[in-house]
Amino acid sequence: MTELFVRTLREDPADAEVPSHRWLVRAGYVRRAAPGIYSWLPLGYRVLRKVEAIVREEMELMGAQEVHLPALLPREPYEATNRWTEYGPNLFRLKDRRGNDMLLGPTHEEIFALMVKDLYNSYKDLPLSLFQIQTKYRDEARPRAGILRGREFVMKDSYSFDIDESGLQKSYDAHRDAYIKIFNRLGLQYEIVAAMSGAMGGSASEEFLGIAENGEDTFVRSPGGYAANVEAVRIPPAEPIPYDDAPAAHAEDTPDTPTIDTLVALANDRFPRADRPWQAGDTLKNVVLMITEPDGTRRPLVIGLPGDREVDAKRLEAQLEPATAEPFGADDFAAHPGLVKGYIGPAALGKESATKIEYLVDPRVGTGTRWLTGADEPGRHVFDLVCGRDFTPDGLIDVAEIREGDPSPDGSGPLHLARGMELGHIFQLGKKYAEALGLQVLDQNGKLVTVTMGSYGVGVSRAVAAVAEDTCDEKGLCWPPEIAPYRVHIVAAGKGSEIAEYAHELAFRLDEAGVEVLLDDRSVSPGVKFADSEILGMPTIVVVGRGLADGMIEVRDRRSGERTDIATADALGHLLALIRNGNAAELLV
Amino acid sequence: MTELFVRTLREDPADAEVPSHRWLVRAGYVRRAAPGIYSWLPLGYRVLRKVEAIVREEMELMGAQEVHLPALLPREPYEATNRWTEYGPNLFRLKDRRGNDMLLGPTHEEIFALMVKDLYNSYKDLPLSLFQIQTKYRDEARPRAGILRGREFVMKDSYSFDIDESGLQKSYDAHRDAYIKIFNRLGLQYEIVAAMSGAMGGSASEEFLGIAENGEDTFVRSPGGYAANVEAVRIPPAEPIPYDDAPAAHAEDTPDTPTIDTLVALANDRFPRADRPWQAGDTLKNVVLMITEPDGTRRPLVIGLPGDREVDAKRLEAQLEPATAEPFGADDFAAHPGLVKGYIGPAALGKESATKIEYLVDPRVGTGTRWLTGADEPGRHVFDLVCGRDFTPDGLIDVAEIREGDPSPDGSGPLHLARGMELGHIFQLGKKYAEALGLQVLDQNGKLVTVTMGSYGVGVSRAVAAVAEDTCDEKGLCWPPEIAPYRVHIVAAGKGSEIAEYAHELAFRLDEAGVEVLLDDRSVSPGVKFADSEILGMPTIVVVGRGLADGMIEVRDRRSGERTDIATADALGHLLALIRNGNAAELLV
Repeated sequence: MTELFVRTLREDPADAEVPSHRWLVRAGYVRRAAPGIYSWLPLGYRVLRKVEAIVREEMELMGAQEVHLPALLPREPYEATNRWTEYGPNLFRLKDRRGNDMLLGPTHEEIFALMVKDLYNSYKDLPLSLFQIQTKYRDEARPRAGILRGREFVMKDSYSFDIDESGLQKSYDAHRDAYIKIFNRLGLQYEIVAAMSGAMGGSASEEFLGIAENGEDTFVRSPGGYAANVEAVRIPPAEPIPYDDAPAAHAEDTPDTPTIDTLVALANDRFPRADRPWQAGDTLKNVVLMITEPDGTRRPLVIGLPGDREVDAKRLEAQLEPATAEPFGADDFAAHPGLVKGYIGPAALGKESATKIEYLVDPRVGTGTRWLTGADEPGRHVFDLVCGRDFTPDGLIDVAEIREGDPSPDGSGPLHLARGMELGHIFQLGKKYAEALGLQVLDQNGKLVTVTMGSYGVGVSRAVAAVAEDTCDEKGLCWPPEIAPYRVHIVAAGKGSEIAEYAHELAFRLDEAGVEVLLDDRSVSPGVKFADSEILGMPTIVVVGRGLADGMIEVRDRRSGERTDIATADALGHLLALIRNGNAAELLV
Repeated sequence: MTELFVRTLREDPADAEVPSHRWLVRAGYVRRAAPGIYSWLPLGYRVLRKVEAIVREEMELMGAQEVHLPALLPREPYEATNRWTEYGPNLFRLKDRRGNDMLLGPTHEEIFALMVKDLYNSYKDLPLSLFQIQTKYRDEARPRAGILRGREFVMKDSYSFDIDESGLQKSYDAHRDAYIKIFNRLGLQYEIVAAMSGAMGGSASEEFLGIAENGEDTFVRSPGGYAANVEAVRIPPAEPIPYDDAPAAHAEDTPDTPTIDTLVALANDRFPRADRPWQAGDTLKNVVLMITEPDGTRRPLVIGLPGDREVDAKRLEAQLEPATAEPFGADDFAAHPGLVKGYIGPAALGKESATKIEYLVDPRVGTGTRWLTGADEPGRHVFDLVCGRDFTPDGLIDVAEIREGDPSPDGSGPLHLARGMELGHIFQLGKKYAEALGLQVLDQNGKLVTVTMGSYGVGVSRAVAAVAEDTCDEKGLCWPPEIAPYRVHIVAAGKGSEIAEYAHELAFRLDEAGVEVLLDDRSVSPGVKFADSEILGMPTIVVVGRGLADGMIEVRDRRSGERTDIATADALGHLLALIRNGNAAELLV
């Protein structure tokens, strides 16, 4: 440690939102170079490379071949798939000295497809899986949490190429299995959930979500085993219900009721129901948005949903992608006088209406459902408005918030919500990219067929943060042995040449036996060394201190905190056995 | 090979200028993705990673610590050192979504200096050497020769930090020794030559130049051991010589002599010398250039040099850097009527002259030298113009071409010229970067002192091309064992399940013994397989063919072409011995 390029910090970095970020910076594993852009210091880089090695090993075991493609890429292939535009401001774009448009690769479907097109031409060449471990770039709007969501990050991306759907399914399953092995080896707690394919396109995708309180994603689980990112939860459309007994719709004066709460209160006061009080869920709330397409064109959209639910911003974003939505502003209302703010109802909505504004409703708004909603006049609402009788939406949109206890789409009971961070994502892309780029091969009958692709990603630098987040405690980092920068941290605690000499000797012997050792040989107080050993987080800490005079040293397990005294005579053997078996306590009692 | 993502090409790529480029593409090691930007296919990437491993090992052995800094960097630190501007169009610049200026790192002096400043503050922390193996970006005006000069490439860059000059010298020497080991292990032929520090700045630098006919660099060697890149050769200024016996300068009519040849011919015809004929070297040629500074300002410059020498474009570029030079155009002459094209002489030149144009001369133009040169009037030249008597240049500039046989600056005899490619470059930077970025530490007396830096680079991806260039022959690639993608290439040549089974078995046994094996199990003709094995270039080729019926297989040495039959009974032992000893011929006779 007198030579290692590391400094532990006593203070949390000002921008640290999550424990992994706090400790990785405080322990001198990473340093911020620019917003969302980090430098890896020696200890951090050792962890990163060990994670890379695990990913590489499992990818090779599943039969994928490693390649390395450029990060700086020409525009044209991304133009062919429309992602040059669809990626929006998340893409780092630049011009070279000749004025050619280029980009920093956020993901490489296009370039892999072109490379395979370049070399292969027959069904006999397939299946094929290629992978790379590479630095990727995304100009995130909100880079956060250190290396957890950076603008420059390391990713393992792989791509499969198959002649047909069943081949794709096999490649997809093989990747899924490899990912399970990778995340198990990293000791991460995770859930495999149904996911949105989003900008990537394709027919099906699953995410590996690390279970983490600080995760950016919310996912659901059902008693029956259904698991999905909330963005991907699909509420089944409501079955039609009879409405023969429904009275005719009738508009009523409801002054000063621009909100659901004021409306429900007034309805219960002036128009009480016989069966039960009015509730927010009896109202049909119409949320007005301004949509911007990637090419810049703008159009209004109204979403109708039960008044007791909000639109979930991430579910909305996922449904609209690559378009984006903003709240309707005062200028927008001024430009659309047909929309009476606070009193908007279905009569003024829909492509067939006078406003011609698209009107999509929540799947719960089914034929026969009966609503209390705006009458399109200030201070008036309409009662008993029946969907399918009194109004017909342009279609459905499933963007209402998912709530703890909502019925699961698989019918197995209530949904349970949890937070997670995306560790991996696997996509069945199908033919989208191959078609756009003309990746075809000859089939068994000599006919050209379009290749079917899959794409698969692991956030390698993010995995470092995820493990740190999973394992750190109130004292610092706490690495699992397989990816710890060093397996053993020897603290020479106390003055005197004997202590220093023994510590050096033990470090040398362990090193000779193939154990990675960090030796704290600094001339600082034992207290500083102990604190640092806890911040740095090597699995086993060996304290060479006053006990040495009596032929004893102390072994501490960083995770459990257990301390065991061992005789110097057996120290090497004990430590090697411990390292091979992974549990200090059992061996050393 | 039925599964490996590789295809050999029968045709040379259209843009291949050098053999390494031709063979790396034809053998399916790399593919072009954009001008100067290449994808690494599985075989190529294996070589790249092996070169990386050698570089990493030697850097760690010399005590450098590995880190990994971002490639996408903020503008500010490069602004502080003025390199944001000085790098000119070679720098890839871009803006992020918030409009911040960023760049793709061509080299990382600034960011390393800031990182050390961030963590260290005492002389006790030094010396320190850090390195990274990273993808770098330079928007080369003329990317060429495949991965030999690309716009995206892999570099090992390291940086040393010392308290003083003697520390820097030690760090520099340690890097120099490590580089010698690296290039020796790669089996490269190279020369260590004095070099220009150029845009990097600093006091001294040396290049490791791979000796290569197709190299872009020219370097010189003297009988006494002096070696330098031509850009760095410094001609000593001429000693003053007496000119008491020189006649007064006299202008003469020399019609139609706008070139040196026409002038010399006319002089010999009309004004013959008594002692010998006039020669081009007797004339003083004045070359007019337009200089553009990095900030865009332009100014003329005239360079005077003996008429038998040309200005060397690369030596000029290196002297003027970061400014650039272009030939003086017709418009420029029109704007400077004092310059009479074809008849320009010293009288019209210099900051003190009427034109005020800066006038620098070759070091050979010393005080007392006597010249035939322009008289600044159309069709007239001046004879016996003595430097230091009749004109005084503003200074010296050493940019004339270096020629085979020129006297060496070390006085040891004639210079010999050769071509090379830059494999590595080591710089004593001194305090330039540390000063600009405020990198100071406390010295032993508690005083703040500026840190002294060195910077050191190895072109890792270029080294792959350099080895390929050094070793390939007319049949294809020919890798040295240490970095070959596979050590042994087994060719199953001929039909029949016995041949296929034995080839598989042998491959399995070798693999089990830790030998990397490529097995050609394709159903193509033996001829195609033999040709491919030569193109792909593994060191040892094992042919399992008709001889198998008699219990024999053939071992071919890819480099020497030697073929040896060995009995299947001893095959594994023979091959393992060969691999351990590295020479097929000796073992197998």
